[in-house]
Amino acid sequence: MNRIEIRLSGFGGQGIILAGYILGKASALYDHKHATMIQNYGPESRGGACSSQVIISDVPVNYPHIIRPHVLAAMSQEAYTKYVDELLDGGLLIIDEDLVRPNGGTQRVRLYSVPSTRIAEELGRKMVANIVMLGCIAALDDSVSAEALRKAVLESVPKGTEELNANAFDRGYEHGRGLVEGRPSTTDQRPPSNE
Amino acid sequence: MNRIEIRLSGFGGQGIILAGYILGKASALYDHKHATMIQNYGPESRGGACSSQVIISDVPVNYPHIIRPHVLAAMSQEAYTKYVDELLDGGLLIIDEDLVRPNGGTQRVRLYSVPSTRIAEELGRKMVANIVMLGCIAALDDSVSAEALRKAVLESVPKGTEELNANAFDRGYEHGRGLVEGRPSTTDQRPPSNE
Repeated sequence: MNRIEIRLSGFGGQGIILAGYILGKASALYDHKHATMIQNYGPESRGGACSSQVIISDVPVNYPHIIRPHVLAAMSQEAYTKYVDELLDGGLLIIDEDLVRPNGGTQRVRLYSVPSTRIAEELGRKMVANIVMLGCIAALDDSVSAEALRKAVLESVPKGTEELNANAFDRGYEHGRGLVEGRPSTTDQRPPSNE
Repeated sequence: MNRIEIRLSGFGGQGIILAGYILGKASALYDHKHATMIQNYGPESRGGACSSQVIISDVPVNYPHIIRPHVLAAMSQEAYTKYVDELLDGGLLIIDEDLVRPNGGTQRVRLYSVPSTRIAEELGRKMVANIVMLGCIAALDDSVSAEALRKAVLESVPKGTEELNANAFDRGYEHGRGLVEGRPSTTDQRPPSNE
């Protein structure tokens, strides 16, 4: 039995839930696996870190909670701080490089930085940063196939925004491939913000 | 301890997940409860019934799966057939009256019909049928306050669609209140479709 746990995290309004939904859908519909997605609400809903938990498995998922995730995407400093320690040793940590500054705890994991929000801004819509992040996950992790994930993105986003979202996914994917292959980023370099 | 289980169901594209997300958010943010929402994917993702499970509780939710729901909203015949039997005795069953024809099993529950898709079409956007349904749930059930749910709708929908969604919610709420009070519907009467 193969069970993969993925946590997507950030703050409200970044489309973390939609991204989790798309990830589970891609696995179930196109990779023919079983999947669940949980959204937890609690004190953290009141303005703090927001996360969705996705479980992908070869068999039906009975326990939909994350135990120790294989993959953590962090799109805010608060989410990073809250969730980094639960990541498995050797797990994949992907951060938004303008919004998260890693402060320790990353030696034991594979850390990749992606300017997901900045790429989204270059595409004209900050709100597609979540889809850039999905493209990057597809490039860096093989628990969901890139083809499945791209298809699920295109059929989950609002009508009329397919091209924008396809571009966002492809830019994220390209960036991720570049990180794996050691290519320089094609994104405008900016000094890190002090947020 | 008070635990309420709600299942929203229909087919892909009706916004069942978004509706579940909003319901949990309303409870957590504005009613100050604990909540979880699960989206299950499996064979049913491949074109069949789609559902989201929302648990609302006074204490943190450890078991996010539905055991016997208190509320079932069914927006497709297939979802109705699949889920009607799990509803608690005396539970609240809300169906889209143009898309679902109850075929037995409803004597033991409180059944209400709402033309959610038709109201959404009258408002010009079929895709807000999910929000009409939420308005109706707010009128018929007190597990989430109408005020909390309306707020959560407005802050969860895409920018620029707030007015449309507020109208959808209000129309659903009004329809639900009318059912409780025995008022006639304000919606155009149409013969039932044969879908």
